[in-house]
Amino acid sequence: MTLNVVMHPAARDRVSDRLAALNLPLQVLPLLEDGRCMVGDRPGPLAEAPAEAVWLTSDMGGRTFETCLKSIAASRTVRWVQTFNAGLDHPGYRAIAARGIRIGASSAQAVAISEYVFAHVLDLYQGLAERRAAQAAGEWKQLPFREIAGARWLLVGYGNIGREIGKRAGAFGAHVIGVRRSGAPAPHADEVCAMSELRDRLGDADVVVLCCPHSSETDRLVDAGFLAAMKQGAVLVNVARGGVVDDAALLAALDSGQVGTAVLDVFEPEPLPRSSRYWTHPSVRLTGHCSFAGNGTRGRADDLFIANLPRYAKGEALVNEVDLKLYLETLP
Amino acid sequence: MTLNVVMHPAARDRVSDRLAALNLPLQVLPLLEDGRCMVGDRPGPLAEAPAEAVWLTSDMGGRTFETCLKSIAASRTVRWVQTFNAGLDHPGYRAIAARGIRIGASSAQAVAISEYVFAHVLDLYQGLAERRAAQAAGEWKQLPFREIAGARWLLVGYGNIGREIGKRAGAFGAHVIGVRRSGAPAPHADEVCAMSELRDRLGDADVVVLCCPHSSETDRLVDAGFLAAMKQGAVLVNVARGGVVDDAALLAALDSGQVGTAVLDVFEPEPLPRSSRYWTHPSVRLTGHCSFAGNGTRGRADDLFIANLPRYAKGEALVNEVDLKLYLETLP
Repeated sequence: MTLNVVMHPAARDRVSDRLAALNLPLQVLPLLEDGRCMVGDRPGPLAEAPAEAVWLTSDMGGRTFETCLKSIAASRTVRWVQTFNAGLDHPGYRAIAARGIRIGASSAQAVAISEYVFAHVLDLYQGLAERRAAQAAGEWKQLPFREIAGARWLLVGYGNIGREIGKRAGAFGAHVIGVRRSGAPAPHADEVCAMSELRDRLGDADVVVLCCPHSSETDRLVDAGFLAAMKQGAVLVNVARGGVVDDAALLAALDSGQVGTAVLDVFEPEPLPRSSRYWTHPSVRLTGHCSFAGNGTRGRADDLFIANLPRYAKGEALVNEVDLKLYLETLP
Repeated sequence: MTLNVVMHPAARDRVSDRLAALNLPLQVLPLLEDGRCMVGDRPGPLAEAPAEAVWLTSDMGGRTFETCLKSIAASRTVRWVQTFNAGLDHPGYRAIAARGIRIGASSAQAVAISEYVFAHVLDLYQGLAERRAAQAAGEWKQLPFREIAGARWLLVGYGNIGREIGKRAGAFGAHVIGVRRSGAPAPHADEVCAMSELRDRLGDADVVVLCCPHSSETDRLVDAGFLAAMKQGAVLVNVARGGVVDDAALLAALDSGQVGTAVLDVFEPEPLPRSSRYWTHPSVRLTGHCSFAGNGTRGRADDLFIANLPRYAKGEALVNEVDLKLYLETLP
């Protein structure tokens, strides 16, 4: 039986040789910009196409993506969605999951995000701004700096992203503590603890990275109590979702110096309104949700789809498959 | 027989417990700021003291250090110098080596220098300056960036520093090529090649780090031919010594864009004169010889001395011991 997969033509072109090499009875239904797709030589609504799988890629514009999510939820044939999103906070995924359609989330961002985290922590630890200023002033200065070696990193969320950060932090000689729901051991961490132990572990962490899903369990996790439990002057990095942080509490902790610096890539809402105090706070390094935007992310997403296709065809578990029940039960 | 070791009182105080735990027949001769040392309760010239070993640490000021080097070369009793320098380019070491006095060089800087290298390469790859500018302008921008993952790093010199860089670059998913005199395999490198093969390996390296000793073999190694053989737009980092680079050739390669950016921490002479074009060149990131100045460097130097003391006492090879013959034969 033919496996009909909807995908953007640009994505198809990138992987066409690898698709052919899989030797599966595959039929590509090319996605159109208006959210419809081709079936044979005729365009038609995706919701009515005989599509079994949809591959969502960063090739599609925002509107196409929105239309796709709605069409998938309305389809009677789609059984699997492979997406380029790591976090499924878009409300369109709710209806898809509720229909029991399998979802393969993306791990392709993890490498890029881990590099983003290191760039910003090293920038802070080494005072690159001071170095630039010394050069601009023509001043020969031996500026001392703090090392990552020997620092304690607490990674809140220890999935794909946390592990990539942990791998690098370990190579730098940091002590890595991963925090995950289950608390079960995982690679690249010196210790793993359960979410329920998180508060007790905040006090001696020099760097706290939020890299967890936004769920009912992590919504406003970083509140006044969390921040007060942190080591004074520590660095807080948010590459998870804006909803994980209580903004008023964080701004107060930054004002008082309880948090040394916040590196923030995600916000609620996005784009971050111009009126937010984050923009101008001297202890905030802010970026516009771009920690994923490394030049290797798209290629890794392609790799993941190619890895998951034969798994789907054989009825196996997918790499990075979403636990639909948990996802629906813990929506924020 | 008592082993008399000259050291700065501050260094002695830091390691006194660990010295005692070594259970060696040890006598500390405290160094004075004027370069003399105490023998019992009387100060006297170091050159005439019954000292068998001298531990040079960053506790001593520049003038004390200079006096020490001269006194050691003039001493008839000193058999071992443990120094905090990684590179022995100070001319005072020449006379010491010529006397056959054993020298333990320092590997304590390697961790700090490797962090310095990553801070600057990540700064360039991720465009932190653009991010800061966007924040200052209140602009929400999704700025894409280049990853270290998949890049090719060529480490010219594959000793302590090269290996620490290689370890981190490997964890970031870079391809690491170490270049060393012998070309023999070494940890944390995907490939190791000999110095004689260096020119042939420059063409596909995205990041070239100079982390070799300054010797007759590396003096002005980075000349017009070396730079022309590099991949256009690559990053060149110098954490070795200024004498490894032909400044006029590098400035020409930066002007033409053949070298994308040079990250320079070392110069000849130092401090770098105000008249140098490096200060204002838009493709140069310049620091005042501070890549070693991490907060962990002094502690690692203490560890190294404590590790080498029993080795010396037992007549064993020292950790990081200088090959005096090679050193003298390859002086620049």
